[in-house]
Amino acid sequence: MNFLNEVAQHYPAAVSLAAGRPYEEFFDVAALHRHLDTFRRHLADDLGQGPEQVHRTLLQYGRTKGIIHHLVARNLAVDEELTVAPEALVVTVGCQEAMFLVLRALRAGPDDVVLAVAPTYVGLTGAARLLDLPVRPVATGPSGVDAGDLRVQVRRARAEGLRPRACYLMPDFANPSGTSIDVAGRRALLDLAAEEDVLLIEDNPYGLFPAGDARRLPTLKALDTARRVVYLGSFAKTVLPGARVGYVVADQRVAHPDGTVGLLADQLAKIKSMVTVNTSPIAQAVVGGALLEHGCSLVAATARERAAYTRNLHHLVDGLGRRFPAGSPVRWTVPTGGFFVVVTVPFPVDDALLHRSAREYGVLWTPMAHFYDDGAPVHALRLSVSAVTPAEIDVGLDRLAALVTDETARRQAAVTVG
Amino acid sequence: MNFLNEVAQHYPAAVSLAAGRPYEEFFDVAALHRHLDTFRRHLADDLGQGPEQVHRTLLQYGRTKGIIHHLVARNLAVDEELTVAPEALVVTVGCQEAMFLVLRALRAGPDDVVLAVAPTYVGLTGAARLLDLPVRPVATGPSGVDAGDLRVQVRRARAEGLRPRACYLMPDFANPSGTSIDVAGRRALLDLAAEEDVLLIEDNPYGLFPAGDARRLPTLKALDTARRVVYLGSFAKTVLPGARVGYVVADQRVAHPDGTVGLLADQLAKIKSMVTVNTSPIAQAVVGGALLEHGCSLVAATARERAAYTRNLHHLVDGLGRRFPAGSPVRWTVPTGGFFVVVTVPFPVDDALLHRSAREYGVLWTPMAHFYDDGAPVHALRLSVSAVTPAEIDVGLDRLAALVTDETARRQAAVTVG
Repeated sequence: MNFLNEVAQHYPAAVSLAAGRPYEEFFDVAALHRHLDTFRRHLADDLGQGPEQVHRTLLQYGRTKGIIHHLVARNLAVDEELTVAPEALVVTVGCQEAMFLVLRALRAGPDDVVLAVAPTYVGLTGAARLLDLPVRPVATGPSGVDAGDLRVQVRRARAEGLRPRACYLMPDFANPSGTSIDVAGRRALLDLAAEEDVLLIEDNPYGLFPAGDARRLPTLKALDTARRVVYLGSFAKTVLPGARVGYVVADQRVAHPDGTVGLLADQLAKIKSMVTVNTSPIAQAVVGGALLEHGCSLVAATARERAAYTRNLHHLVDGLGRRFPAGSPVRWTVPTGGFFVVVTVPFPVDDALLHRSAREYGVLWTPMAHFYDDGAPVHALRLSVSAVTPAEIDVGLDRLAALVTDETARRQAAVTVG
Repeated sequence: MNFLNEVAQHYPAAVSLAAGRPYEEFFDVAALHRHLDTFRRHLADDLGQGPEQVHRTLLQYGRTKGIIHHLVARNLAVDEELTVAPEALVVTVGCQEAMFLVLRALRAGPDDVVLAVAPTYVGLTGAARLLDLPVRPVATGPSGVDAGDLRVQVRRARAEGLRPRACYLMPDFANPSGTSIDVAGRRALLDLAAEEDVLLIEDNPYGLFPAGDARRLPTLKALDTARRVVYLGSFAKTVLPGARVGYVVADQRVAHPDGTVGLLADQLAKIKSMVTVNTSPIAQAVVGGALLEHGCSLVAATARERAAYTRNLHHLVDGLGRRFPAGSPVRWTVPTGGFFVVVTVPFPVDDALLHRSAREYGVLWTPMAHFYDDGAPVHALRLSVSAVTPAEIDVGLDRLAALVTDETARRQAAVTVG
């Protein structure tokens, strides 16, 4: 994503339909102070900590697995009907660290590989690359994941002498595809994971953002009766990106190097102690305070954001329809929620085209090729609705339409001349 | 260190001469709010950010290399007479992440190794283990590092077809040895690093804590005219551990994978973007505010802590002298600052003995064997003075003396019987 940030910095006047950061209109610096105070009072009043202990909890080195684990567990119970032992949680420096820790734990040796539904979030492939852990793509099906291909890929890896450890996926409003897996698909995936003896790494940053009247579906973890799912959570989209607080639920029983059996969460904590020691208790306190102020539910707390995303998603999809009427070769997804729409165009979309789009047309988007690891040309781009206004969407789509028209004509002219 | 935390939790009544966390008497939760406000005003008044930009800086995703880099650079100029371009700094989630990023950058392939002065801080060896990066020990000499052995180890590694990339060391009041390198030793190390073409990774968490009238020495980085030194800094001991904010100065020019040449800091930022994305701007704001409130100098700001550590260090060393008079086989280091004293005893010191010390004698310390990677028996333990009162030091030393007396007698009896 560094590359995209650099492009955005080079063309500050361009409308960005690339940025996936959350809506910031409702951000409130004053709330930081309130959240800190709320959490401080919680330590004293609810947990019975004396003044010295409160100081120590907020300001010293602390518990590797975190200090808001009980509140995160409550949040999962309230918002996801998911019962999690607080001890099975590790609070991390954003969801990215959670991903990194899980991949490191799964990479026990050079034969280990993970699978990931393609197109894949770059944070996953980037973390795996740092760890020399190969990522093998699994095809996206009409309902999120092609389960048949998942089985084929697991067996193929085994036939090559490799150990497929887990499959990474975002069941809800995935980044970048925007697709969601239906409930039957979720159950089928859990069955398949048990049959093939692999874990599912469920990443759920967008689950609270169904569009309009769309129904929220149970998470894989909520349907998981056999501890097949490692669940990654983020507060970046629901509370504040700047807190850099995420978490992982890892209730699997695993053999530790010393021969004892314990929670995967404890193995992750050992790894974390050598990466970041512990997540800043001050940052955790901000998130903990925000949770406490909303009875540990973020569904109601994010109503304004959900409305903004819904409005923008509808505005974008409607706007695409007006600019690319029936008969146009341009196609797009119509997701039921989340931040992202994928637009398919009649030409390959690469970084050079993005630069030209930024420079000559003043609009930014994300080449879908970034989300595949094979370097093959991809005729698609990702649009994000999370950090723009409807007016900016209009301007951005006008500019995108001009680019698509010009690029299509240019290619046709080249073919004619050729 | 997880093991030590577990022992400490098992024996809460034991006096801990093991904990290396900073003195917490002067911690102040109210200061958190003040620091946040100070930094917010700095963004608006000094950097000219409008209200929206201030919100975005404090609450959104942000610059991978950090938002207080200019203040850290000023701090290094004021306190260390060290001129650093802010662009050469990466603000990290504690110094541990800085260490992790540097090791990952140095591990370009399976032939890369790093050297480290032994005994070695466990955060370094633990991070290297996560990255499958071998760490080869270099002997400690009378003045911190045995430069001759460093040269031998570099050449031996090369003769084995390996690439020794860097040597890790703490020139000031090292953890765990307590030793410091004199100025001539520092210059000799820099010459050696240039001659042998390796980097020096200078870790400096304790540099602001000379005892009493001891003089602070120039950092390796301040003497480095050839960009041989990667400098790791921490605010955990000087501002707050709970902020989890550290940094790395990496002004080396390196070839990036895309063929361009740039700063090592930028390569570290790319790695960081896949580990933690960025350091919480809220945590950075707390540290930034603290820096601003003290004119970016932490020397004056830590005068009370320095006095407490000095008092404790003298009290501990005097107390050892009273309990183990001339003729005793017990020896100890007399560091010129920092948190740690190493005590050599006439028997091997392992985790089993620590458990017995905690259970039967009520005193905790750290077996020095933890700081060596070879598993050989070590007849020494580390005492820390940072998180205790003089009265606790007295009780702890009485208990330690009883343990040493009993254990020595037990061993002699076993020898006699045998």
